[in-house]
Amino acid sequence: QFRADFLELHPYDQAKIFEEQDGEVRFLIYTYLSPKEMAEVMEHVDRDLVTTFIAEMVPAFAAKVFEEMSTDDAVDILNELDKNKVASFLTIMNKEESEEIKELLHYEEKTAGSIMTTEFVVIHHEMTVKEAMRHLRKEAPDAETIYYIYVVDSFKKLVGVISLRDLIIAEGDWLIQEVMSERVVSVPVGEDQEDIAQMMRDYDFLALPVVDFQNHLLGIITVDDIMDVMEEEASDDYSKLAGISDVESFGDTALQSAKKRLPWLIALLFLGMFTASIISRFEHTLDQVALLAAFIPVIAGMAGNTGTQALAVAVRSISTGDIDKIGKASVMWQEAKTGVITGTTCGVLITLIVAFWYGELYLGILVGISIMATLIVATIAGAFVPLVMHRFNIDPAVASGPFITTLNDIISMFIYFGLATLFMNLLLGG
Amino acid sequence: QFRADFLELHPYDQAKIFEEQDGEVRFLIYTYLSPKEMAEVMEHVDRDLVTTFIAEMVPAFAAKVFEEMSTDDAVDILNELDKNKVASFLTIMNKEESEEIKELLHYEEKTAGSIMTTEFVVIHHEMTVKEAMRHLRKEAPDAETIYYIYVVDSFKKLVGVISLRDLIIAEGDWLIQEVMSERVVSVPVGEDQEDIAQMMRDYDFLALPVVDFQNHLLGIITVDDIMDVMEEEASDDYSKLAGISDVESFGDTALQSAKKRLPWLIALLFLGMFTASIISRFEHTLDQVALLAAFIPVIAGMAGNTGTQALAVAVRSISTGDIDKIGKASVMWQEAKTGVITGTTCGVLITLIVAFWYGELYLGILVGISIMATLIVATIAGAFVPLVMHRFNIDPAVASGPFITTLNDIISMFIYFGLATLFMNLLLGG
Ligand SMILES: [Mg+2]
Ligand SMILES: [Mg+2]
Ligand SMILES: [Mg+2]
Ligand SMILES: [Mg+2]
Ligand SMILES: [Mg+2]
Ligand SMILES: [Mg+2]
Ligand SMILES: [Mg+2]
Ligand SMILES: [Mg+2]
Ligand SMILES: [Mg+2]
Ligand SMILES: [Mg+2]
Ligand SMILES: [Mg+2]
Ligand SMILES: [Mg+2]
Ligand SMILES: [Mg+2]
Repeated sequence: QFRADFLELHPYDQAKIFEEQDGEVRFLIYTYLSPKEMAEVMEHVDRDLVTTFIAEMVPAFAAKVFEEMSTDDAVDILNELDKNKVASFLTIMNKEESEEIKELLHYEEKTAGSIMTTEFVVIHHEMTVKEAMRHLRKEAPDAETIYYIYVVDSFKKLVGVISLRDLIIAEGDWLIQEVMSERVVSVPVGEDQEDIAQMMRDYDFLALPVVDFQNHLLGIITVDDIMDVMEEEASDDYSKLAGISDVESFGDTALQSAKKRLPWLIALLFLGMFTASIISRFEHTLDQVALLAAFIPVIAGMAGNTGTQALAVAVRSISTGDIDKIGKASVMWQEAKTGVITGTTCGVLITLIVAFWYGELYLGILVGISIMATLIVATIAGAFVPLVMHRFNIDPAVASGPFITTLNDIISMFIYFGLATLFMNLLLGG
Repeated sequence: QFRADFLELHPYDQAKIFEEQDGEVRFLIYTYLSPKEMAEVMEHVDRDLVTTFIAEMVPAFAAKVFEEMSTDDAVDILNELDKNKVASFLTIMNKEESEEIKELLHYEEKTAGSIMTTEFVVIHHEMTVKEAMRHLRKEAPDAETIYYIYVVDSFKKLVGVISLRDLIIAEGDWLIQEVMSERVVSVPVGEDQEDIAQMMRDYDFLALPVVDFQNHLLGIITVDDIMDVMEEEASDDYSKLAGISDVESFGDTALQSAKKRLPWLIALLFLGMFTASIISRFEHTLDQVALLAAFIPVIAGMAGNTGTQALAVAVRSISTGDIDKIGKASVMWQEAKTGVITGTTCGVLITLIVAFWYGELYLGILVGISIMATLIVATIAGAFVPLVMHRFNIDPAVASGPFITTLNDIISMFIYFGLATLFMNLLLGG
């Protein structure tokens, strides 16, 4: 009875229930469920837990589970296991499935090949609609989707696509090549997953065919996997902006969290020491007007903030492709103008505050001019760094917020103390 | 000929070509295309440009275009127009369409109601499979999707769902209620779009039905719109972390960009003045050891960086729902431990650097202890602020990186100068 109730549920709900069971119950479930039923559960189980579950299964059973899974999910999970284990699973699996999986394991991470599945429905362009429907009914239970049917010629080259929507309203004796769309949008097997997600979103497709350079159909990418790609890419950009290698840390220990953060922090510490050494060169200036130090955090902070803003805008416009429409030079020019506006506004504001609050007019003007100059330079730097990285094919998202912030600390302190030293007599006079 | 070639293209490609034409050519296209063809183009045109295009059309034609659009897209576009215009379009549109659109215009932004469409296929539970297929073929051209067919009873309440995949392999004389799945997952009309996206991703659905509190079917949400929601929400979180109201600014002027950034910058400027006033209280301390100022940026900077890291992790775990599984107290405890590890590491490191580089042991120890204490407090603060906001139902993402950074500036300066003042005799002695 438990078995029947359990199988009534959506595989995602099955997976969530399964995850919460303790070892003994899980052991019972391994014996109660068929490999096919287990495969559906494993596809939806949290990817951090799945290796544990696989290890608990009898190897022969686990191999059957892999056979029954969608090949894309099987490959994802196998990629998390160690190489010896993978090899041994592949030897006990049925030949055909293991060949397919072996192929898929070769593709590089984050490319079309690594997220495509081989369970797609393909029909020949000379079939009739009726024959195609018959073929479809037979393939339906195993296919990843039957809503887009890809059409190939006798050389297995992709020549068209027809949606099930169009197929069911077509007359039974028409030829597929008469009703299919020849303008089939496909992606090369090496295409970046982020670009594929962008395409899927633009065209509102439910699946995209993947081809080799001779236009042979290799697999399909379905929209459910693209949603995962989008989440992964967004979380990646977010992590980098925050200066951390991976924000998704469900179940991490404090030590693991610290390990993800320390590389950034230590790098920034050394950069920060550089700032310190610049300021210490101006020790004499500071000796004369100690109050100068009070405005260090606000100047450095504002530089960091504007830099991060400009960085975020630049990184986004690179990843959405807007940069190609606008052009890099005009983005830089735009940022420079924006920096002038924000810099002047904040500079005037702080001059007034310092002049009235502290009663120090010259100090106010000095801080104001420093903020203005700093904001202009920091805004330009914030946009410039990711654009240069993009130019050299480095993912601009690695130019994290904290990095730009610390870089701008250095620039801002140089401007501030440089100006203070130049106009020291005014400061001392006022 | 141009018309035929143009219509061969995917609507997205049509839209991109259309966007690039100048006013005269666009005017010609308005006369060449039927309202239905134009509607497809408008659905895929950039949402920032669409109001201009609508304004160029003859009102009666524009009204017909709205009639032919998916209702969700029509509502999105109408929401961008001014109220008088919307009212006048609604009066010249056909009654049925305008009623549906009026309904949809009432729903709050970012809820299920605001992203659902009313072009869904619904069948009665007592139909046979054959009748259902016939109904489907008739509805196919206008429906948003026919791959999930929702089943209602005589009171129009949602009682089941059947996929087209299951429908085409079912026998023609079976009753729908025998083959449908009764476990239909639906969302209430007021549900937040972000939660709906999460569900769609978990369950790998292509569409989700939207119901009122009596389980009447009101509309459906399709996966293509959910991809847009995911992009919008991700870009929103990213913008907030960067301290900017909206990073998507394709075509913004410098003044518009500055307007998006200035509110944050000015708020942070005032917070920064607060930091300045704290430091100025310690003017006497600074007068004695001017070199203290040199380490202000590195200490404030490191505090900001750890704070941003902790913030990012907390915001993400709230938005993925992981926080509910782990518990707030244990997240805080985890962050505290992480802060201790990163703080101790960085503190020891900087003590060594200052002691050897500057030859100032006591200053090194002071800076080291300050960094350590600061990192611990900043890490805890970074996680605490979003958790408290979440507790009071404020979107934690508004606790932006720059805000946390500036808050941590204040905390860190307090710690640093407090310690320096306390141990001044040691510093002067060393
Ligand atoms: Mg398989
Ligand atoms: Mg799957
Ligand atoms: Mg994969
Ligand atoms: Mg990428
Ligand atoms: Mg779209
Ligand atoms: Mg898949
Ligand atoms: Mg990216
Ligand atoms: Mg649409
Ligand atoms: Mg809408
Ligand atoms: Mg929300
Ligand atoms: Mg999924
Ligand atoms: Mg839609
Ligand atoms: Mg959010």
